[in-house]
Amino acid sequence: MARNAATPAECYFYYPHLACVVGGRDDARASANFAPVTWATPLSSDPPLYGVCISPRTHTHHLLLAAGEFTVNFLPRAEQALVARLGALSGRDVDKVKELSLALEPGRTIGTPGLVASYVFAECLLVERHQLGDQTLFVGAVQHVRARPGAFDERGVLSLEAVAPLLYLGGNRWATAVGSPATGEA
Amino acid sequence: MARNAATPAECYFYYPHLACVVGGRDDARASANFAPVTWATPLSSDPPLYGVCISPRTHTHHLLLAAGEFTVNFLPRAEQALVARLGALSGRDVDKVKELSLALEPGRTIGTPGLVASYVFAECLLVERHQLGDQTLFVGAVQHVRARPGAFDERGVLSLEAVAPLLYLGGNRWATAVGSPATGEA
Repeated sequence: MARNAATPAECYFYYPHLACVVGGRDDARASANFAPVTWATPLSSDPPLYGVCISPRTHTHHLLLAAGEFTVNFLPRAEQALVARLGALSGRDVDKVKELSLALEPGRTIGTPGLVASYVFAECLLVERHQLGDQTLFVGAVQHVRARPGAFDERGVLSLEAVAPLLYLGGNRWATAVGSPATGEA
Repeated sequence: MARNAATPAECYFYYPHLACVVGGRDDARASANFAPVTWATPLSSDPPLYGVCISPRTHTHHLLLAAGEFTVNFLPRAEQALVARLGALSGRDVDKVKELSLALEPGRTIGTPGLVASYVFAECLLVERHQLGDQTLFVGAVQHVRARPGAFDERGVLSLEAVAPLLYLGGNRWATAVGSPATGEA
């Protein structure tokens, strides 16, 4: 079968991806900032490391460097409009927590809060960073994970019956996930 | 609302994630090897960089270092059993291309092929690597992207009407994506 060739910049070939909202402590405002960052991935299981890619031009980049810590928040599809709004505003101009009346959950191991609207959030200490092209990869050592009761099953797998996670498709298109049978059951 | 706390190792908080199958040239066998790698993310848009996390203990790690290039392949949910099988076999023991009668599509810019079963694959030159915890982050400069006709729309966004992408949930659970209205339409 013939295929369409594309230059990399023309194609969001790597989506859908979980919409990940990064929380950063904003000491200057005695507040916090939250920004959607879809380029993110686990990096290591032992020790548990999680990485987020952030442009050096953003306020989030500045906050994470200053605080040395961050939270990663995953939200249900019902919060799509909130996530889009968090992406449209810059924390340089406004305090998003005030502007959007965000309900916060204090971090247990770090000073950065999570979003009450998330179905799970992880607290991370910044341990490394790498400049890769036009982004900085912030490497976080995951300290603690807090989930809504019922969101994950006893093996730690997301329950799609309980949570419809918000996925980003690129170009302001969004999606969610639905289950497939386990391999062997199909 | 009270939340359940979990240690990071107990919870696949970062899934679902697109199942990404990494292709590596295997010159010793005059063949190629394909392995599922769900820890993967775009890293930069200009230049276009894509990263995959691979354990130093794997055959794929060895192949990518030797070849200095790789492909990333994204498959539809109909190929779930194939992806699980690629993960269960080691390229150290068997030639997966022969064993699973994989149909290959030659790379256009590199010597590593893609999988015909993929709805899109990208050709990458290895430009950097970083040891992060128990994994190596291989950073690929994306040279070329090839997609099935109709898989992506004119803006480069995946068409979920045309393709049901395979997502991994952890613990041998799988999922796919279904669309949500664009923000503003909801």
